[in-house]
Amino acid sequence: MNIAQSQVTKPIPFDTARLDGLLDDAGIDMLMVTSKHNIQYLLGGYRFFFFDYMDAIGISRYLPVLVYPKGKPENAAYIGYRLEHFEHELGKFWTPAVKTTSSGSADAMRLALEHVNRLGGHLRRIGVEASFLPADADAVLRQSLANCEIVDAQFPLERLRAIKTPRELEMLRTASDRVVDSMLAVFKHCAPGATKNELVGMLRREEVGRGLTFEYCLITAGSNLNRAPSDQRLEAGDIISLDSGGNYHGYIGDLCRMGVLGKPDAELEELLGFIDDVQQRARKPIKPGARGGDIFTVAEELLNASPHRPYMEFLAHGMGLVSHEAPRLTSTGPVGYTAHDADRPLERGMVVSIETTMKHPKRGFIKLEDTVAVTDGGHEGMGDAGRGWNRAGAQ
Amino acid sequence: MNIAQSQVTKPIPFDTARLDGLLDDAGIDMLMVTSKHNIQYLLGGYRFFFFDYMDAIGISRYLPVLVYPKGKPENAAYIGYRLEHFEHELGKFWTPAVKTTSSGSADAMRLALEHVNRLGGHLRRIGVEASFLPADADAVLRQSLANCEIVDAQFPLERLRAIKTPRELEMLRTASDRVVDSMLAVFKHCAPGATKNELVGMLRREEVGRGLTFEYCLITAGSNLNRAPSDQRLEAGDIISLDSGGNYHGYIGDLCRMGVLGKPDAELEELLGFIDDVQQRARKPIKPGARGGDIFTVAEELLNASPHRPYMEFLAHGMGLVSHEAPRLTSTGPVGYTAHDADRPLERGMVVSIETTMKHPKRGFIKLEDTVAVTDGGHEGMGDAGRGWNRAGAQ
Repeated sequence: MNIAQSQVTKPIPFDTARLDGLLDDAGIDMLMVTSKHNIQYLLGGYRFFFFDYMDAIGISRYLPVLVYPKGKPENAAYIGYRLEHFEHELGKFWTPAVKTTSSGSADAMRLALEHVNRLGGHLRRIGVEASFLPADADAVLRQSLANCEIVDAQFPLERLRAIKTPRELEMLRTASDRVVDSMLAVFKHCAPGATKNELVGMLRREEVGRGLTFEYCLITAGSNLNRAPSDQRLEAGDIISLDSGGNYHGYIGDLCRMGVLGKPDAELEELLGFIDDVQQRARKPIKPGARGGDIFTVAEELLNASPHRPYMEFLAHGMGLVSHEAPRLTSTGPVGYTAHDADRPLERGMVVSIETTMKHPKRGFIKLEDTVAVTDGGHEGMGDAGRGWNRAGAQ
Repeated sequence: MNIAQSQVTKPIPFDTARLDGLLDDAGIDMLMVTSKHNIQYLLGGYRFFFFDYMDAIGISRYLPVLVYPKGKPENAAYIGYRLEHFEHELGKFWTPAVKTTSSGSADAMRLALEHVNRLGGHLRRIGVEASFLPADADAVLRQSLANCEIVDAQFPLERLRAIKTPRELEMLRTASDRVVDSMLAVFKHCAPGATKNELVGMLRREEVGRGLTFEYCLITAGSNLNRAPSDQRLEAGDIISLDSGGNYHGYIGDLCRMGVLGKPDAELEELLGFIDDVQQRARKPIKPGARGGDIFTVAEELLNASPHRPYMEFLAHGMGLVSHEAPRLTSTGPVGYTAHDADRPLERGMVVSIETTMKHPKRGFIKLEDTVAVTDGGHEGMGDAGRGWNRAGAQ
């Protein structure tokens, strides 16, 4: 037990020394965490069931707030919504202070600031999650702590989450396996005449039936490159791509598999075979200490030598509680996203999603997306089933 | 076709005259809408499938922005995420301007402001949704429009949504019926030894199997008043409350039904009978033109005359795309929530959730929650099945 833990009765579910180091690097004295994913991480898997899907209530919203003063977990507090007192009764919160009486975003921030003001002491710099802090709560914060600098803490929080524990890896493995199993069940049951919307409905039921929370499905059929669910009907011979995210206790399985309504011809076999080859070769360099960017180097070399290059894309990105997170291996992503980890060594416990996409002008959308964890021995594919052509109706 | 519509090629899916009137009352020149529910409302049912459940991506988030200049729908614009170009291709957006290239919250606001700046003209007051506008996007907005007053527009937007169209009522009816059907299926299949978590998992599958998006379930078993899902096991004779929200295309069914593992005794029959009586009498005054607060008057009178008063609660609130919305009949709710509609007439198309709760110190948690729409003829209960004791295992 480290010193920080000794001050707190319940086990602290994350590495406080690592977080404190990251906050030191960012010059942050205190964190005010307000996103569901970072709250979940810092509370050891807790996500309030009532607002798992929705946020809105009345003309305000749910806003959980976790106050974490750097190096002083004994002063941490969790501010929850009124109904969260049921969770508090069940002992879900490790923070020494817990207040489950909030009923809106500005109100939650006021309660968090009451705690901060009780603590006293001089704060120079407070870290918030600027894209997950509502403007009304932000205004309350700035008014109360007018002498503090308020900076974005999403970067250190992302670093903290980058290396997964064995328990987190197990969640991601389960999510990945179940998403793929669900897709294979859908391919088995789909037939000409069904719509893309119906297939997505089926996939949703298959994922939920396996204990996942369905998040989304991008889908194509035939030579049409549009990936939105719609009333487009499947036709005999169509190829189908299913690219779906579903989470298991918050941890996302995000994979893409291909199906075909009929027998794949030689060209289809060759196209998916090439994509498979890129995917397999791209994961080869993955091991602790390897340069993250090498995943791209290998893949880009194969793509550049291919006649299909003009309509192909390759992407690799970290994943976990968020579908795109550290390690960041490319600047392809949200604005401001940099290839921060491309020249850094991969570490055991990192998890990378690898995607090779072909928007074939005649044959349609063909893609594989795989999930690969960095292990002591190199790497482990998660959810690796069904990577060839899955034939509709095949047993 | 009104004048506003004549300027726009596609049908505008809401009452622009009503919205413009509400904006006039609030002195708002232009709306910048950023919540999923209000975006859905103003885009006629559209909700981007990829971010239906999650918001986070990278170290930012999904932020849809709808710009609506009062009285000028021909100048409206929708700013979507990069993957929303698939939806644009499918013709989902009525706004004359559409940009589907955003990749984060601040970025989305920058794109929205490019549109606003192109429009020119003098803006005095901009309406935002302060609890659904992230701090980083808010900062971009304030910097760009430093001479404008920025006010909260959630109140006029809530008023706009208060009266449902026949299509919206059909969605709410479907959601309510299916939530109740799902609960009855769970009661039928539950047995001693099952945990509350398992029952919630079963309910989730039942709701999703009926085409709903499961949102949450509050659950109690036996005499324990804790409503969080947990590993508490059901025992023979236990009573069970299921209070669940599930949505059908965004419209929420939110009801509570009771089950019992065995035969309800006379006291249980009497307790639920009293709650049923309160619920039935509370909906009686509901009709167009009736005072909204009369729902409470009737219920409180019954409760005040009851020996069970000390552990009973009554609540009624509007519902639709948000689980608590206008009409607002009580100040019980998020901070700042007032009983704005208690003394106003109910209008046809309003939908009210009515809840009577008993936290019986010995028998446990007993509750009914019903959904009632205001109709020309008076009112219509939605999802009214299963309001008595539902016996586990009964066919």
